[in-house]
Amino acid sequence: MDIQKLENLLKEVKAGKTSIEKALAQLKSLPFEDLGFTRIDHHRSLRKGFPEVIWGEGKSSGQILSIVRQLKKKGQNVLITRLEKRKAIDIQKVFPKSRYYPRSNVLTYLTQPVKPTGKGTILVVTAGTTDIPVAEEAVVTAQVMGNRVETLYDVGVAGIHRLLAEREKLETARVLIVVAGMEGALPSVVGGLVDRPVVAVPTSIGYGTSFGGVTALLAMLNSCASGVAVVNIDNGFGAGYIASLMNKM
Amino acid sequence: MDIQKLENLLKEVKAGKTSIEKALAQLKSLPFEDLGFTRIDHHRSLRKGFPEVIWGEGKSSGQILSIVRQLKKKGQNVLITRLEKRKAIDIQKVFPKSRYYPRSNVLTYLTQPVKPTGKGTILVVTAGTTDIPVAEEAVVTAQVMGNRVETLYDVGVAGIHRLLAEREKLETARVLIVVAGMEGALPSVVGGLVDRPVVAVPTSIGYGTSFGGVTALLAMLNSCASGVAVVNIDNGFGAGYIASLMNKM
Amino acid sequence: MDIQKLENLLKEVKAGKTSIEKALAQLKSLPFEDLGFTRIDHHRSLRKGFPEVIWGEGKSSGQILSIVRQLKKKGQNVLITRLEKRKAIDIQKVFPKSRYYPRSNVLTYLTQPVKPTGKGTILVVTAGTTDIPVAEEAVVTAQVMGNRVETLYDVGVAGIHRLLAEREKLETARVLIVVAGMEGALPSVVGGLVDRPVVAVPTSIGYGTSFGGVTALLAMLNSCASGVAVVNIDNGFGAGYIASLMNKM
Amino acid sequence: MDIQKLENLLKEVKAGKTSIEKALAQLKSLPFEDLGFTRIDHHRSLRKGFPEVIWGEGKSSGQILSIVRQLKKKGQNVLITRLEKRKAIDIQKVFPKSRYYPRSNVLTYLTQPVKPTGKGTILVVTAGTTDIPVAEEAVVTAQVMGNRVETLYDVGVAGIHRLLAEREKLETARVLIVVAGMEGALPSVVGGLVDRPVVAVPTSIGYGTSFGGVTALLAMLNSCASGVAVVNIDNGFGAGYIASLMNKM
Amino acid sequence: MDIQKLENLLKEVKAGKTSIEKALAQLKSLPFEDLGFTRIDHHRSLRKGFPEVIWGEGKSSGQILSIVRQLKKKGQNVLITRLEKRKAIDIQKVFPKSRYYPRSNVLTYLTQPVKPTGKGTILVVTAGTTDIPVAEEAVVTAQVMGNRVETLYDVGVAGIHRLLAEREKLETARVLIVVAGMEGALPSVVGGLVDRPVVAVPTSIGYGTSFGGVTALLAMLNSCASGVAVVNIDNGFGAGYIASLMNKM
Amino acid sequence: MDIQKLENLLKEVKAGKTSIEKALAQLKSLPFEDLGFTRIDHHRSLRKGFPEVIWGEGKSSGQILSIVRQLKKKGQNVLITRLEKRKAIDIQKVFPKSRYYPRSNVLTYLTQPVKPTGKGTILVVTAGTTDIPVAEEAVVTAQVMGNRVETLYDVGVAGIHRLLAEREKLETARVLIVVAGMEGALPSVVGGLVDRPVVAVPTSIGYGTSFGGVTALLAMLNSCASGVAVVNIDNGFGAGYIASLMNKM
Amino acid sequence: MDIQKLENLLKEVKAGKTSIEKALAQLKSLPFEDLGFTRIDHHRSLRKGFPEVIWGEGKSSGQILSIVRQLKKKGQNVLITRLEKRKAIDIQKVFPKSRYYPRSNVLTYLTQPVKPTGKGTILVVTAGTTDIPVAEEAVVTAQVMGNRVETLYDVGVAGIHRLLAEREKLETARVLIVVAGMEGALPSVVGGLVDRPVVAVPTSIGYGTSFGGVTALLAMLNSCASGVAVVNIDNGFGAGYIASLMNKM
Amino acid sequence: MDIQKLENLLKEVKAGKTSIEKALAQLKSLPFEDLGFTRIDHHRSLRKGFPEVIWGEGKSSGQILSIVRQLKKKGQNVLITRLEKRKAIDIQKVFPKSRYYPRSNVLTYLTQPVKPTGKGTILVVTAGTTDIPVAEEAVVTAQVMGNRVETLYDVGVAGIHRLLAEREKLETARVLIVVAGMEGALPSVVGGLVDRPVVAVPTSIGYGTSFGGVTALLAMLNSCASGVAVVNIDNGFGAGYIASLMNKM
Repeated sequence: MDIQKLENLLKEVKAGKTSIEKALAQLKSLPFEDLGFTRIDHHRSLRKGFPEVIWGEGKSSGQILSIVRQLKKKGQNVLITRLEKRKAIDIQKVFPKSRYYPRSNVLTYLTQPVKPTGKGTILVVTAGTTDIPVAEEAVVTAQVMGNRVETLYDVGVAGIHRLLAEREKLETARVLIVVAGMEGALPSVVGGLVDRPVVAVPTSIGYGTSFGGVTALLAMLNSCASGVAVVNIDNGFGAGYIASLMNKM
Repeated sequence: MDIQKLENLLKEVKAGKTSIEKALAQLKSLPFEDLGFTRIDHHRSLRKGFPEVIWGEGKSSGQILSIVRQLKKKGQNVLITRLEKRKAIDIQKVFPKSRYYPRSNVLTYLTQPVKPTGKGTILVVTAGTTDIPVAEEAVVTAQVMGNRVETLYDVGVAGIHRLLAEREKLETARVLIVVAGMEGALPSVVGGLVDRPVVAVPTSIGYGTSFGGVTALLAMLNSCASGVAVVNIDNGFGAGYIASLMNKM
Repeated sequence: MDIQKLENLLKEVKAGKTSIEKALAQLKSLPFEDLGFTRIDHHRSLRKGFPEVIWGEGKSSGQILSIVRQLKKKGQNVLITRLEKRKAIDIQKVFPKSRYYPRSNVLTYLTQPVKPTGKGTILVVTAGTTDIPVAEEAVVTAQVMGNRVETLYDVGVAGIHRLLAEREKLETARVLIVVAGMEGALPSVVGGLVDRPVVAVPTSIGYGTSFGGVTALLAMLNSCASGVAVVNIDNGFGAGYIASLMNKM
Repeated sequence: MDIQKLENLLKEVKAGKTSIEKALAQLKSLPFEDLGFTRIDHHRSLRKGFPEVIWGEGKSSGQILSIVRQLKKKGQNVLITRLEKRKAIDIQKVFPKSRYYPRSNVLTYLTQPVKPTGKGTILVVTAGTTDIPVAEEAVVTAQVMGNRVETLYDVGVAGIHRLLAEREKLETARVLIVVAGMEGALPSVVGGLVDRPVVAVPTSIGYGTSFGGVTALLAMLNSCASGVAVVNIDNGFGAGYIASLMNKM
Repeated sequence: MDIQKLENLLKEVKAGKTSIEKALAQLKSLPFEDLGFTRIDHHRSLRKGFPEVIWGEGKSSGQILSIVRQLKKKGQNVLITRLEKRKAIDIQKVFPKSRYYPRSNVLTYLTQPVKPTGKGTILVVTAGTTDIPVAEEAVVTAQVMGNRVETLYDVGVAGIHRLLAEREKLETARVLIVVAGMEGALPSVVGGLVDRPVVAVPTSIGYGTSFGGVTALLAMLNSCASGVAVVNIDNGFGAGYIASLMNKM
Repeated sequence: MDIQKLENLLKEVKAGKTSIEKALAQLKSLPFEDLGFTRIDHHRSLRKGFPEVIWGEGKSSGQILSIVRQLKKKGQNVLITRLEKRKAIDIQKVFPKSRYYPRSNVLTYLTQPVKPTGKGTILVVTAGTTDIPVAEEAVVTAQVMGNRVETLYDVGVAGIHRLLAEREKLETARVLIVVAGMEGALPSVVGGLVDRPVVAVPTSIGYGTSFGGVTALLAMLNSCASGVAVVNIDNGFGAGYIASLMNKM
Repeated sequence: MDIQKLENLLKEVKAGKTSIEKALAQLKSLPFEDLGFTRIDHHRSLRKGFPEVIWGEGKSSGQILSIVRQLKKKGQNVLITRLEKRKAIDIQKVFPKSRYYPRSNVLTYLTQPVKPTGKGTILVVTAGTTDIPVAEEAVVTAQVMGNRVETLYDVGVAGIHRLLAEREKLETARVLIVVAGMEGALPSVVGGLVDRPVVAVPTSIGYGTSFGGVTALLAMLNSCASGVAVVNIDNGFGAGYIASLMNKM
Repeated sequence: MDIQKLENLLKEVKAGKTSIEKALAQLKSLPFEDLGFTRIDHHRSLRKGFPEVIWGEGKSSGQILSIVRQLKKKGQNVLITRLEKRKAIDIQKVFPKSRYYPRSNVLTYLTQPVKPTGKGTILVVTAGTTDIPVAEEAVVTAQVMGNRVETLYDVGVAGIHRLLAEREKLETARVLIVVAGMEGALPSVVGGLVDRPVVAVPTSIGYGTSFGGVTALLAMLNSCASGVAVVNIDNGFGAGYIASLMNKM
């Protein structure tokens, strides 16, 4: 039953053609989704100011282009993650204003200026330089969602003074994203230095028993510092997203 | 918004006090669950003839008794799984007609006769005698749900002739539940002998690398026989339940 | 001992050349398989109307062609799974009427029309679009086995309204196959909405701790919904096969 | 070198007894912690209004009492987690105003009223009733840290209408903690319904392949919903703590 | 169809009451097991001189006693493994001539003298003294099956000279069983010293990353020495059994 | 100290130049290996009639050729495993009489006829056709070591009649090697049918939860049939080797 | 062949009764161990000044007492690890001068003063207070082996200033043992601060995904700091032992 | 605050422009890192005589060249690990005096002679020839750090006499690095033969259940020999580094 039908039902009630009892019965059995339920979803999109993220993996350039065209029509900004360079080139041919980040395989296409809706700064910290691609995915995600983002790279725990030298940066951030592979110890140390939520992102950096990031993940889940929560391995996007939700609170 | 409010809204439409446009808007934003959605759930219960299973673990005797009393009022039959003997005694004091199966820690309490709604026979097969407690959970579940159940115990693959000697039983069953621990090979062999769906139940029987049933589970998931699907380790209830759904088709 | 020998033995008994005792002894030691045992297998094939599935992986185009030729002679329909495109081209050159599904790497070759022996509809549901290749393997398998199949794609739990909007489709299916990667939650939700058996298929879609489908598999095995059984990761064929067995009950 | 020594050094500089060069050299080699570094830590405590959580496991009643006495002197509120009932009784004998939560093994001792510093409501949701002990640890933690907490228990995904019936509660919360064992699917569904950060807590509820909460954990890490971050299995405290940090932003 | 029926069928053929065609058809559809198939199993028992092993775990004293009584009637020797002391006492009350080995939880009851059918010596070697219970299970099994068994205990690889000092013993054995926990290295060293098959038995001795014997098992499976095959963790019985099969070749 | 020195020492003793005490002292401190210890190794080689197996992986064609040349000089037969086709071609150019088995990546080079020293037949059984490469490695190994080998391929447990039809072959073998991937159930069934040692070889055949052969391995280790021992995944060589040791007993 | 036989052989050579050739042949085939090989082992003991450690687990009080008595006769100091309190009481009754450490289940019995042979200080560091039992095992082991040991407890990375406040202690140690459970991050931080070898000891402290110390172990193996090596979970003894070897270099 | 500011502060104190109280307050709040903290790091570098190791993986030739140029300016020696041949060629074009080790993917560039600061010999032992690349990484690392290194390759435990024949070499080394894949047993045997610390390095050599080195790692962690500590799989660099630290003690 679509809106038209619902309108007709109300008209019939008004006109006395359908009794209230019958109308009630029909309404109760209405598939709820016909009652504009999807509009709620629409509202969510508007409220968030960030309607759609495209997961690039497993989609052809053609499929992606088709989605981007639809989003452009609606005047929405676009974020594509896990996009191979080859496909990015295809998309940039059609949308030359889009921007591709080759380290993190992210593409953004801004059809309208990003509104700065985040209240403070999100600080993205990495243990090593090889963690930067994952960090960048978080950075771009948070920026496109309207946040001011700063970075602090290559401050792993084996040279703790490099981290401590940046205490001010750590303490002034409103939300922190900490990205680390190998033993994944950095979020524990950072979590002990700040009073803000820390989103920990394990990366698949390492070899042998790093098990593609599992060791870093486990370490982060077992952090002896309070105030740390964890996302999936290499999930820079997820970290940027939830950090943005926090920064808008 | 409850039914009363909905009725009032319709009355206002009928009386012309609320325009159709406004009514439409209000209806669209109605929490759908107020439209009798939960009634659907009620219907499901009636349709299944088996409204509620109680998971006994982690509930006190008092809590369980309270639930059973409510179900009794509604005239529903009761199945309690994972019920320690100690609690079963408490329940049988209050409901002496209930029946407890100590091997499988299952208790049934029939407030009305079970209707035989299953169309054929469900055959429950085990590899060893130590698998019987899990099998019994499946048997009782299927029986309480209205199925005729037969059993074929201790026909593991190391003595394949014991199984083959019962080919007729295997071939006349409408649904088969095959319960095995250790190497979990029996569902593959049974699956190769019959044309009916086989529900495989790994058990935690074994030692060393049986890993509490994981080995049997993995073997069953990798069955080279078609027509086999698997439930969780020691999940006799789940096997009995889905087998019953099939047998009523 | 083949049939000829058995016949001769009986003739000798009849003619009094062999005593009943000796005949008994000989019969007891007969390799049972010579007694037409394989015929039973043959019967199974006929009964199922679906004699042979070819696992394409690890077989050369030549080997596959040779098997297909034999099956064609017997007038049997053919289903080949896990068939690389390269080999599919080889086969389609020889059997141009065969049909290849490149997404799911399945090839069908119908030497006779498929008989519609399934009693109801099998509904194949996926959480995301990347799960479709596995779903398609299930769809084609079920169709070739004589079932009416419908699909409901991209209704994952993160946008639960998309699923709920299709409740009618869910409720009218006779058997449901639910295909999901990542957290594998969809079968639990679907299993809670329907009264029919749900065959859950984990897919290897995901990254990091999705562990190639293991996370989805574990989630499905631990479904809090009753009525769910699970097949191996990416095993669309197995799901289609057992769903077909159910739909013919 | 303590403050006294530092003061003396400055006096010597002032008095010309120590050259500026020598003073600089001495200052450079000062153990930084002597320069009031620990005071920073002290500041953190004051700022948070929540200085010390005691991990009860592995500590004797005597050890715990001694710590509580020290904290009481400083006028600080106390939260003790993982405290066996036996030890709780010992502590309540000495501090009868302390409050023990036997389900979650948490004890609180408020030496001063909790200041309501959280800005909105933290909603704690559970999939089943057996998840409540972990949820309660989160509830008490968040309350003692100055947050208004609401709960929504037993709304697991197998009966999705129970969850959907409470959409208003979900949508008005500022932070959500979602607690689930077994297949751990609830955070994905909740995460798809709200625009707020979701802290997912896997519990060790389940059997067989639930692997003491690992399955739920993996499912949560692989959530297809954005805006979900995860803490360790059964870590209600950690969830309450980080949710509180968010709610004070 | 039992033997009687088969005899009747042949009589009818002889008497001309049943045509050969009909007899053939009936014979073909005979359940093969009725043709004395189980007799083969009987023959196996006789041939092995070792008909039945009872797995004591999960069986009550009463159940075990009942099985032992049946075996005694047939004049068969009995081996019970994984038998708790408590049950052993029950059995020894009834069968005082039975012998219980408390270290390995094995009970033997010889109703007839063991025939020495093994051709050479089976040598059972352990790495440490804590591995002896598992070794003893192998020793008793092999002895009861008619083998001469020698032992060489506590010759682990960290003191390699202890092992090398016994080279003669190693070289004169016909089959070797090597039992080790922890790093499980002993079978590799032994396998490099002898030309005989080595049956490796991992034990659950160890702590931390010994993972209940998994580490020893994995080491044994990866032995760089040829001529080593492995049984399940703590499976002394299995090792004794297969070593006995070899020693009778 | 080499033999020359030892001889000199004895001469000095004989000549009275060195006292017996001093000679004893010198002998005690002799590095044992100088006493011809490596000769023992030499003896082992001669005794086995099979001195050297070359593991081809990680060695260049040049390195392998150099080893083969040395072995040829000594008149020894050569077996090379895990040899890529590319290297095999290099070797066959130099040693055209060598024979390469491309399915199993094995190369043999017989510099002298193989002596038939095995006492009976080794039967190599596979569950599927994709297991044949691993089986072939076992076959060639056993043949080159002087054994008569028979094969029985594609008799997996899902079509149990195919296996049972070959009972005679199974029962007349002296040693059995059973090769299976997927659920690895075949060794259990075979082990229940024969009285001979069964060497089980898991293969990495399968997908999803077959985990590269781990599932098959675990199933084999947990075999409910006695008389089964296991080698590493895909270790056809190891199986052929130990089976040969047994067949020479 | 024992020394007596060797002496006789030499006498025969001297007397001309045995030719040098024959003597050579006999000597070559001597079991090397008879040549005083075990004496080397004896030498090792003397050299180390620490002959025997008793692993208390799985040994009865009687067995342990018997070993201690033997060691006492030889004037050797004794270290018993993993000794339950109950057994310790038995031993202290007989040897009242022995000392038991109940936290770490270690008992020492000094029959002679410990010689201070370590060259510098071994520093034992822990992350938390619950790690102290494992640390104490290391402390006692190192002390009994003749080392000066200092400790630094409860300086985990979540409060990094506590660790940094003790930099002098860290920098003056000659060898460091770092003990940590949960996320196991401490060795990385310590390793980055010092130029000395760090022996990392994971402990089984934690819950949920700490997996009994596996997470800490993995983190330590993946340390981004150079100069860290790892021992088994909870292996305080092993850490103390190898640290002692280093400190004596 | 940098040194200049600190100097100014002291000058002001001296000049009486700033009170001691104010100066104290300012000093207490100084970011410690400004007090020359990083100089400590500098000192560490000088002290070690080995300032910087470059992890080649994930860095471009350009990035590496830029780092090498900086290090060259400071007159520091360079060690690059995990460097692909392709990049090594790029670097050798610019720095022709650098030396590349293709087996181990290590490049060294000595801008000054290596000072022999190690006190004894480091012995690097391997089980097989395929372990040599990892061993070589350890060898080069230790050499560049100023140690005398000897090697003992291919002395795995399956031919124990090869190892024992080199006892002298083993016993004269000051530190031992033992490299092994497959079952990883060699460190246990070596650890039992020497009184020196053994650094065990598992390698990813093997197949099937070697699990990329995990089996070897687990075996080494569970070594029954005391005096063994372990580094990550294939971490030859880490082993060489910590062995060098020991050898300089």
